[in-house]
Amino acid sequence: MDAKFSRRDILTKAAVFGAGAAIGGIGGFGGGAAYAEEKTAAEADYPVQYGHGGTQDDQLTSNLEWTSGEANKWPWPYTKLDPEIVAEKAYEGWYELGCGGTVIASILSELAEKIGEPYKSFPTESFVIFEGGVAGWGTLCGSLNGAAVAISLIVGPPTIDETTVLITTNIMDWYCHSNMPIYTPKNPRANKTSIVHTVSESPLCHASVGKWVKASGFPSSSAERKDRCARLSATVAYKVVETLNQWIDGEYNEGVSWFAPQMVFMPAQQNCAKCHGEKVPRPPLPEGKEWPKGY
Amino acid sequence: MDAKFSRRDILTKAAVFGAGAAIGGIGGFGGGAAYAEEKTAAEADYPVQYGHGGTQDDQLTSNLEWTSGEANKWPWPYTKLDPEIVAEKAYEGWYELGCGGTVIASILSELAEKIGEPYKSFPTESFVIFEGGVAGWGTLCGSLNGAAVAISLIVGPPTIDETTVLITTNIMDWYCHSNMPIYTPKNPRANKTSIVHTVSESPLCHASVGKWVKASGFPSSSAERKDRCARLSATVAYKVVETLNQWIDGEYNEGVSWFAPQMVFMPAQQNCAKCHGEKVPRPPLPEGKEWPKGY
Repeated sequence: MDAKFSRRDILTKAAVFGAGAAIGGIGGFGGGAAYAEEKTAAEADYPVQYGHGGTQDDQLTSNLEWTSGEANKWPWPYTKLDPEIVAEKAYEGWYELGCGGTVIASILSELAEKIGEPYKSFPTESFVIFEGGVAGWGTLCGSLNGAAVAISLIVGPPTIDETTVLITTNIMDWYCHSNMPIYTPKNPRANKTSIVHTVSESPLCHASVGKWVKASGFPSSSAERKDRCARLSATVAYKVVETLNQWIDGEYNEGVSWFAPQMVFMPAQQNCAKCHGEKVPRPPLPEGKEWPKGY
Repeated sequence: MDAKFSRRDILTKAAVFGAGAAIGGIGGFGGGAAYAEEKTAAEADYPVQYGHGGTQDDQLTSNLEWTSGEANKWPWPYTKLDPEIVAEKAYEGWYELGCGGTVIASILSELAEKIGEPYKSFPTESFVIFEGGVAGWGTLCGSLNGAAVAISLIVGPPTIDETTVLITTNIMDWYCHSNMPIYTPKNPRANKTSIVHTVSESPLCHASVGKWVKASGFPSSSAERKDRCARLSATVAYKVVETLNQWIDGEYNEGVSWFAPQMVFMPAQQNCAKCHGEKVPRPPLPEGKEWPKGY
């Protein structure tokens, strides 16, 4: 694994509550011994937790054998791709597979051409179900859901190398705060002269689409809204490839932008007040823990 | 496809705004001609839309070739499984793969044992990234995200047979309104004498976990909360298998509980006021459309 993204490094960076205040260049391979010896106050306060509250200690504790196919060996190989070729494919593919399916298919089909199996046999089309925040429920934007699937498949187990969680959470954070869509396809199907841009401030399809249709005045069923989401999928696919190209070269050096189980002691977005208003409820704290000052 | 779930049937059922008011037994194969001839007012008001606003007409319009491996042929074969065996596997597997990974792995590993490839080569473990609403962001509950992936892989393209969307949306609706967790594992790791049950009223991890930790007083990092989520994943895996067993026998006959693009003209959950309060904004309507009376 890349020393820059050892467990210890992520904990230290996460402890400053992200906001771009990453502490760069902290090395160490994050082995259990080194971690125990050099444990920081931040680490003591915020034991690493994945969404389900697991830790490296209680992960991988089952003795189940899931599958035995060669393609099941994980992570899968990666070779650098051209983000523009993938983005163009993602834009066109949106009209066939929706947001989530096209992000996965545009990236994995390029890898299938360059590497072959196991990518050739991955059932990309089935991820069309991600569209509209899964079956139209407006939950996680399919582009991000697809990005998470592709990143995890290529980068590998978060319990061995948190880089998967690091890259995924940073792309979700980037999505929330970017003026979307960024990528302009060669042959847009609508919004040909100009397009309205909006900042979702949320990884949820409902908020992302809702803010755009409100700002643009185009209904969700319009060709303009479809083109907007196709461009958004292309933008996310471009970003994922750009990021994986940096990662494979060992040049990905971002800190953690948001890791809720450490920040607020439970899985959550960053924008609590958007739903909770001023009275943001606090979950029960682990025994002996306290909320950080000013939080 | 099953006549009971033709496009026309879904439209007709959806038009009554779900709420369990399914109109049973409406037949017809939903072919374009029959659809045009027997179009109802409901259908005229609510053209079928997937999350991205696509329709059967503008879906599958790209000429891209994604992958060519045999395993890529979709949908994949299904044979009836024992929901209890799958649920026990899902409970144990949660401690290795989190919520999303274990729902996928518990179902697909059983199919790998009974059918072999392509299931043996599906990279189940990589879906650990779904945990905590994807990388701990608290968005879609990983159990539902995993359920959607498994259902789509087995049931097939929603653009050919909406059953994938029908089954997925009904399981999400069931999840939102059930007193969870329902399934009790043979050897629970915590909450051994009793467990607190809560109704999430949302498919989001943050709401689901948040309501449970508030009601139980156990923090997100506690063994009790982990056992609760492991039981929830087992409950969802059980429900998916139970449903697929009905579907493969042609005995799945539920109406649409919620299909937001038809109900509110954009991807959304059902509980608008939970975030929006009394002033629920309305998205721009397609030209010539009106909000239904009393909505």
